[in-house]
Amino acid sequence: MIDNQAINLINDVIDVNDRGLTYGDGIFETIACVNGELHNWHLHWQRLCSGAERLSLSIPDDLIFLNMINLKLLQNNDLDSDSLDSENLNSEKKVIKIIITRGKGGRGYQFPQQAQTSVIISVHHWPERSIDDYKKGMRVKVCQTCLALQPVLAGIKHLNRLEQVFAGNEFNGNDYHDGIMLACSDESSQLRTRVIEATSSNLFFVKNGQLFTPKIDTCGVQGTIRQEIFQLAKKMSIRIEQGHYTLSELSDASDVFFSNSIFGIVPVASITCSDNTQWFYTQQNKQRISTALSSKINKALGRPVFL
Amino acid sequence: MIDNQAINLINDVIDVNDRGLTYGDGIFETIACVNGELHNWHLHWQRLCSGAERLSLSIPDDLIFLNMINLKLLQNNDLDSDSLDSENLNSEKKVIKIIITRGKGGRGYQFPQQAQTSVIISVHHWPERSIDDYKKGMRVKVCQTCLALQPVLAGIKHLNRLEQVFAGNEFNGNDYHDGIMLACSDESSQLRTRVIEATSSNLFFVKNGQLFTPKIDTCGVQGTIRQEIFQLAKKMSIRIEQGHYTLSELSDASDVFFSNSIFGIVPVASITCSDNTQWFYTQQNKQRISTALSSKINKALGRPVFL
Repeated sequence: MIDNQAINLINDVIDVNDRGLTYGDGIFETIACVNGELHNWHLHWQRLCSGAERLSLSIPDDLIFLNMINLKLLQNNDLDSDSLDSENLNSEKKVIKIIITRGKGGRGYQFPQQAQTSVIISVHHWPERSIDDYKKGMRVKVCQTCLALQPVLAGIKHLNRLEQVFAGNEFNGNDYHDGIMLACSDESSQLRTRVIEATSSNLFFVKNGQLFTPKIDTCGVQGTIRQEIFQLAKKMSIRIEQGHYTLSELSDASDVFFSNSIFGIVPVASITCSDNTQWFYTQQNKQRISTALSSKINKALGRPVFL
Repeated sequence: MIDNQAINLINDVIDVNDRGLTYGDGIFETIACVNGELHNWHLHWQRLCSGAERLSLSIPDDLIFLNMINLKLLQNNDLDSDSLDSENLNSEKKVIKIIITRGKGGRGYQFPQQAQTSVIISVHHWPERSIDDYKKGMRVKVCQTCLALQPVLAGIKHLNRLEQVFAGNEFNGNDYHDGIMLACSDESSQLRTRVIEATSSNLFFVKNGQLFTPKIDTCGVQGTIRQEIFQLAKKMSIRIEQGHYTLSELSDASDVFFSNSIFGIVPVASITCSDNTQWFYTQQNKQRISTALSSKINKALGRPVFL
């Protein structure tokens, strides 16, 4: 599986015959880099490896990756120091994106056993986010676009993201700040009811002091902050359970929040269902689990802690 | 929707931030070009337009496309006449591939309303295929990889093709020549039973002189030859029906065949199910519907007619 020779390090442009473009035949990661530290690198690396294994992609070892990332960061710092634009105020915080594709070749969909993996590492500006999202919570809607059940792809962060593109365009950031995605049902079940995640975050809810999060077994992405929350919950003796939950189970939750590797933990203020039913969540309770988690996770990411 | 200004014609390489690569945010077509004629251009164009509409992609009009294709063909002919390698024996037959992506930009999965569409047109060698596939029929297996039910993406030829990549790697071309894909079921139905298509072709079967083909409403690609077969069946007074069929309905079919824009109609000799049950189809009956269809479709594509 791991082969340091057979990779092709791509900079600004990629061959139009690369299977990453033609079939979405690859995986990616977006990693928060705060003060030179890659947040949760080991969890990103774990997911990258499991994605590569699932897709039978050859990838170089982690030291090679870390060196490539450091090199890109150094090059980027040089660029930053040359320019004075306001976007660079946050130059101590960056987003690192890794894309790994199968590279060129193959007979149609079939890929060659000795494909030369393409690796793209890019450094992006740290995206700002309104402090209101953290203090007051987000208004979110339930998306019309559902997540298709495909166990072969569930959990990994692959390049086939059209469902998220559709869902992400169902709200504009004014009326709603994000969207919740449900699992697609097949013909035998009439209604889409099972909640999975947000368009680019995992979803958690609290009931009677216990934390719940949808199981990522048939669709959805296994988030790194989601993993971190499992570890923290254990340390903090918070009960946590993953399972298949219907959307209606969120109606009487005391706390709903999303987790994302770049934004940390962001609370939900209200959910609007497709029939316009609305559920509201108070941000007043200082004792809630999301507050406790944000004081660890958001602090490390330089995001607001909602104490 | 249609805007001839806002396109970016891409040649050999594409920006690594293009959404075609990062999210598979685009569509494609592979078109047979035989003696300078684009086979079923109007059907490819129709599908391209409906894909663009579904994805809210701006695309230029068909005349612009036809001119771009002709230009590429002329450039390619110059290349061919400069080289003498054996691959160019079939220079009067080519495959034209069109890829259209959303281009760069957007905030995460959300795309900008004024995105600059990327258009890639490439000319490829005509793929040869063993005459035995046409004369004796293909040995095919039922793939383990299923097609997820996603009505939003069903029918169109989008760039999210990991399911086909997985399925295409379940056979090597020696034991089996192609694979049949079933619809994924959700938890409520225990078994995958509904047949959809082959890894890169549509599927047809014949029973009592009537033609049947799976409905492409929840997954699968609306093939151009599939469309042509509907038109031909009407002209030739062959009864044709589309619906949801279980795999077992193929067991006693008199004729099973695949249709593909480049390979035309290719008959199936045997199907091996996942429990190793095998069904065989005789290629001796000269009166069968696939023979009649191949005499029209395969002839136009310069593929063997199995009379």
